[in-house]
Amino acid sequence: MTQYSFKDDYSEGCHPSILDLLAQTNLLQQNGYGEDEFSLQAKDFIHRQLNNPASKIHFVSGGTQANLIVISALLRPHESVIAAASAHISTNEAGAIEAQGHKVNTILSQDGKIKPGDILQVLAQHHHTPHVVKPKLVYISNATELGTHYTLSELKAIYEFCQAHDLYLFMDGARLGNALQVGDMSLADVAKYTDVFYLGGTKNGALLGEAIIINRLELQIDFDFFIKQKGAMLAKGRVLGIQFLALFQDGLYDQLAHHANQLAQKIKHAMSEKGINLLVQTETNQIFPILPNSLINSLKEQYDFHEWKEMDDEFTAIRLVTSWATPEYVVEEFIAFFNKKI
Amino acid sequence: MTQYSFKDDYSEGCHPSILDLLAQTNLLQQNGYGEDEFSLQAKDFIHRQLNNPASKIHFVSGGTQANLIVISALLRPHESVIAAASAHISTNEAGAIEAQGHKVNTILSQDGKIKPGDILQVLAQHHHTPHVVKPKLVYISNATELGTHYTLSELKAIYEFCQAHDLYLFMDGARLGNALQVGDMSLADVAKYTDVFYLGGTKNGALLGEAIIINRLELQIDFDFFIKQKGAMLAKGRVLGIQFLALFQDGLYDQLAHHANQLAQKIKHAMSEKGINLLVQTETNQIFPILPNSLINSLKEQYDFHEWKEMDDEFTAIRLVTSWATPEYVVEEFIAFFNKKI
Amino acid sequence: MTQYSFKDDYSEGCHPSILDLLAQTNLLQQNGYGEDEFSLQAKDFIHRQLNNPASKIHFVSGGTQANLIVISALLRPHESVIAAASAHISTNEAGAIEAQGHKVNTILSQDGKIKPGDILQVLAQHHHTPHVVKPKLVYISNATELGTHYTLSELKAIYEFCQAHDLYLFMDGARLGNALQVGDMSLADVAKYTDVFYLGGTKNGALLGEAIIINRLELQIDFDFFIKQKGAMLAKGRVLGIQFLALFQDGLYDQLAHHANQLAQKIKHAMSEKGINLLVQTETNQIFPILPNSLINSLKEQYDFHEWKEMDDEFTAIRLVTSWATPEYVVEEFIAFFNKKI
Amino acid sequence: MTQYSFKDDYSEGCHPSILDLLAQTNLLQQNGYGEDEFSLQAKDFIHRQLNNPASKIHFVSGGTQANLIVISALLRPHESVIAAASAHISTNEAGAIEAQGHKVNTILSQDGKIKPGDILQVLAQHHHTPHVVKPKLVYISNATELGTHYTLSELKAIYEFCQAHDLYLFMDGARLGNALQVGDMSLADVAKYTDVFYLGGTKNGALLGEAIIINRLELQIDFDFFIKQKGAMLAKGRVLGIQFLALFQDGLYDQLAHHANQLAQKIKHAMSEKGINLLVQTETNQIFPILPNSLINSLKEQYDFHEWKEMDDEFTAIRLVTSWATPEYVVEEFIAFFNKKI
Repeated sequence: MTQYSFKDDYSEGCHPSILDLLAQTNLLQQNGYGEDEFSLQAKDFIHRQLNNPASKIHFVSGGTQANLIVISALLRPHESVIAAASAHISTNEAGAIEAQGHKVNTILSQDGKIKPGDILQVLAQHHHTPHVVKPKLVYISNATELGTHYTLSELKAIYEFCQAHDLYLFMDGARLGNALQVGDMSLADVAKYTDVFYLGGTKNGALLGEAIIINRLELQIDFDFFIKQKGAMLAKGRVLGIQFLALFQDGLYDQLAHHANQLAQKIKHAMSEKGINLLVQTETNQIFPILPNSLINSLKEQYDFHEWKEMDDEFTAIRLVTSWATPEYVVEEFIAFFNKKI
Repeated sequence: MTQYSFKDDYSEGCHPSILDLLAQTNLLQQNGYGEDEFSLQAKDFIHRQLNNPASKIHFVSGGTQANLIVISALLRPHESVIAAASAHISTNEAGAIEAQGHKVNTILSQDGKIKPGDILQVLAQHHHTPHVVKPKLVYISNATELGTHYTLSELKAIYEFCQAHDLYLFMDGARLGNALQVGDMSLADVAKYTDVFYLGGTKNGALLGEAIIINRLELQIDFDFFIKQKGAMLAKGRVLGIQFLALFQDGLYDQLAHHANQLAQKIKHAMSEKGINLLVQTETNQIFPILPNSLINSLKEQYDFHEWKEMDDEFTAIRLVTSWATPEYVVEEFIAFFNKKI
Repeated sequence: MTQYSFKDDYSEGCHPSILDLLAQTNLLQQNGYGEDEFSLQAKDFIHRQLNNPASKIHFVSGGTQANLIVISALLRPHESVIAAASAHISTNEAGAIEAQGHKVNTILSQDGKIKPGDILQVLAQHHHTPHVVKPKLVYISNATELGTHYTLSELKAIYEFCQAHDLYLFMDGARLGNALQVGDMSLADVAKYTDVFYLGGTKNGALLGEAIIINRLELQIDFDFFIKQKGAMLAKGRVLGIQFLALFQDGLYDQLAHHANQLAQKIKHAMSEKGINLLVQTETNQIFPILPNSLINSLKEQYDFHEWKEMDDEFTAIRLVTSWATPEYVVEEFIAFFNKKI
Repeated sequence: MTQYSFKDDYSEGCHPSILDLLAQTNLLQQNGYGEDEFSLQAKDFIHRQLNNPASKIHFVSGGTQANLIVISALLRPHESVIAAASAHISTNEAGAIEAQGHKVNTILSQDGKIKPGDILQVLAQHHHTPHVVKPKLVYISNATELGTHYTLSELKAIYEFCQAHDLYLFMDGARLGNALQVGDMSLADVAKYTDVFYLGGTKNGALLGEAIIINRLELQIDFDFFIKQKGAMLAKGRVLGIQFLALFQDGLYDQLAHHANQLAQKIKHAMSEKGINLLVQTETNQIFPILPNSLINSLKEQYDFHEWKEMDDEFTAIRLVTSWATPEYVVEEFIAFFNKKI
């Protein structure tokens, strides 16, 4: 590849300290299926941030896998999930949730976030029981598909609404690291104001791996059967444990997310200086500038990225993603190139 | 752990050359979802051995995942799988196949293998259509759960039977490396006499990874949707590609399996010299000696292994598994210890 | 019940000639599971109108059952259905289609009908394979949930679009009798321009029963397994056969639908004369007048019906349904009562 | 058909008093979906026999439907059902239970009945969690597929075992009427010693219909969603209610089952007098005589029945089924014919 890619935050391998720890522990014999000592240590480190000793942690390989396992474990067959129309489970998982038997009730949203009032509207459309599905779980992403994040008070509002309406709250945290760096919310807050969430590793420096965290006791029952049954229980569970150990034993997870966010802000400011409009505000590591098509073509000479949304005949919103692996100098070169081409 | 473990072939990490290749390629940007160049190269190397340019290769993370994806992709909802009662899909996957909607029709077998006559009997019990399921796929494991393997003529007989009865043939190759080292069958033979099979990485030196190989054209259609929908498509597909590249670019896969098998033979011979009976003949990397319980307790002081089957009040069959990672000197020490305790 | 109910077209039992035929044949011994002679005769009579000897007919008990059986038989797990947002499968079947594993892609529609251009838009949103579902089947209702019907040229346009885009076309005909009476389309046209459809009995004079008709040969394979597996194969299949025999042996099906439609027109004209607006044009046996809430309350003294949609603080659209069982004099009384109260 | 059929107990329509009640109530307007007054009355009559006011009753159309609805409502995805290998759900429902995602763990049984010890053995094979399914529900049939029945003490033993092992107990009562006539068990006993059961109508005089009865409160939650979602909720639920009303308002259900059983005993005694062996003892309305093939051929001239099991080259066990509709004189003629041919 000759162009530098801003297409996503999983174009590189993993942070070198993960490879180091894999190498260092490689020939130690360990129990399989997540019963290795590294997985236990990693869970310990995560627990220190959760401030909820009752929370239960499980490692799986990827986000779609985490979503389908959690949702199939939480819902009975007639129950449905409420999510933003732009949610990953609605648009980007090849029908994984429906394949588990559940309908996704969608809410239109400009910024990828949903509010209690939106959820209430969905509930209001489901009074004609038993001819309709029974909405039972609210799914939110933080950061969202559009890079926005929830504030603590927004999260609390949703959680309290869910409690009041006998709904579970599940947070997809494929990019939770990025969200935590910019908001007023700690991991302990997430553990307090969700029933289940997951902490993404794949998009924040791991080769693969997401940590599912179940805060509500009754939802923890038999959860490991679901991991096994859906094909997500790695014989060498150490692979996931070691990675989360490297990420959480001394703050690497936070640093990597911070780095990605910072570079996104840098690009955003460069855009602002040139008066470029954004499709959505840049809050984490995704920037959605609306650019003239001619400029997009110029940028493509040296950079790779997604064309996200055609705005009109002349303008298109593109998506640029920074990551733990993006070098600062590359961002500077990109800005210089951009400024030259505009 | 103070005891040495013969419990399984996934107690260690991975062959060091895999870690090397991961490190070496780590910061190169690549496409996600298996579209990286390492996956393509790995598929090329595997293809050279398949001798079937039409075969299609897909990498996934583990065996249960491979089984449920293949079976759900091949069968319509009313169709069932025929397998040995000891088959992994029947006993060890937490109902993964049934969770995809399909019944497993089982065949009792002493050595884990099934024969055309067994399959015919199952078919004979399913004439009362449409009140019964429709058996449509035959699942065999090679090596089997009991470490036995199929000869080429046995495989051909099953394949021809399947062709004649409009059944698909799927081989679970979680330990196919081990089977290929001891039989008269090449990878090209497997590609010729199965519709689908997979080549196990996890139990032969990889951190994780199985290569699903689809030989029949009509079964290749839309297969990637299934990988995505079941949560098995890694964002960093390179993780799987790089491992299979390391295993297949210069014969490492064969060497590792050969090593494991050789050490198993060494243990088996030591047992034979002492007149120990085996539950099943040792053909690959698993040994099932039937030992007095007192001896088993002595062995446990220094070694870890599964007690497989209680034979009577005094004797139990244990399972010892060797692997690519088992050092020869450990086997020699074990034999010496065994000889001392017997 | 003291009020007369215009709530639906299934408030009464069945047309008396069905009861007569049930009684007349009651003690004749017959094969079970739809292999009785009455089912065969009924299929013969339906076939005479289909003009397609290759079409295959199956009887089941109800509409949701027909929908879930057809859709699960036609689709592979990664494939989805395209339907109007108001479609019965989308809103009124408790997630039956998702419970079979399939997503429903919805299209907003004012009158319950969809057009090739709508379908094209859905397809355009599903290019990012394999991360999205694969739309494979178009579901239309005729008459629709809003009582509108498709013209022959509209149906042909959809069918040709489906053919060109490798999509199946399935028509939900729970109220097909009503639609056929008002349009320019014959049953033979439906058999020609759909892949699968069903002819509703429950809402047109039967106690229960829908006739699924499969016109495309490849979709007929093993269909009876699906009927059995979903619990829809009645031991006494004669119950369905006898009813369709009574409905189709001498034109009763058409007469009953015609009767229901005529009475709906009568009510509609009475409304028009008073300047009442309709939510949707009355084409078949459903009338959706928009009435002041005070008038609605007056009508409720003597009549039962659904309040369909709140239009504003003062007006609500109600739904009145006529049926094969509605006596003409009741309609006349209703109109008189309405005219008095307005 | 010129031969008289002893093939099953659903060869005729329904008891005439059912047709009478259908006719008598035919044009009364009623609510749909089981909310009609006849369904309520029928439930009242059944409740009087249950002696458990908390039990909840739901009507559905057939046995496979009842089984798949109950099992999918009771189990989470990783849980399985324990049943006799001869159970209807294991052999005769086209994989309906697996299609809902659940494995059926089978127990070999000569007489179709299972015992606590059998269940314990299944549990013992499922300790290796979470790699195995979790058995959670015990399914028994009463009468069984072989016409045998459970005594009250046998039922209590199973129920107490289930209670002690945190298992649900579900009784398939497709032929419960027949079983109740010969055993020492009342309907109140069944309601006391099962969690869920159903009372079969189809095989005891109804056109179609089974009454599912849920005795355990927590299993009643949201059950109606399952009836709807699986396509089992009839728009004209009255069809089922009216039939159960006719069967239960003055003892008809018991009389019909008694009649069928009596005629079976008559045939059995005639066989015994001729020294004919039976495959299983005749307890209800099924007789399984083991006859020479030549005699079977002679009987076929005038009678239709199933050849159940080939015993050896010369002998075959056949199945004769009597029903509410079998006239006594036909049985007498059959015995005379049999005595002449033997």
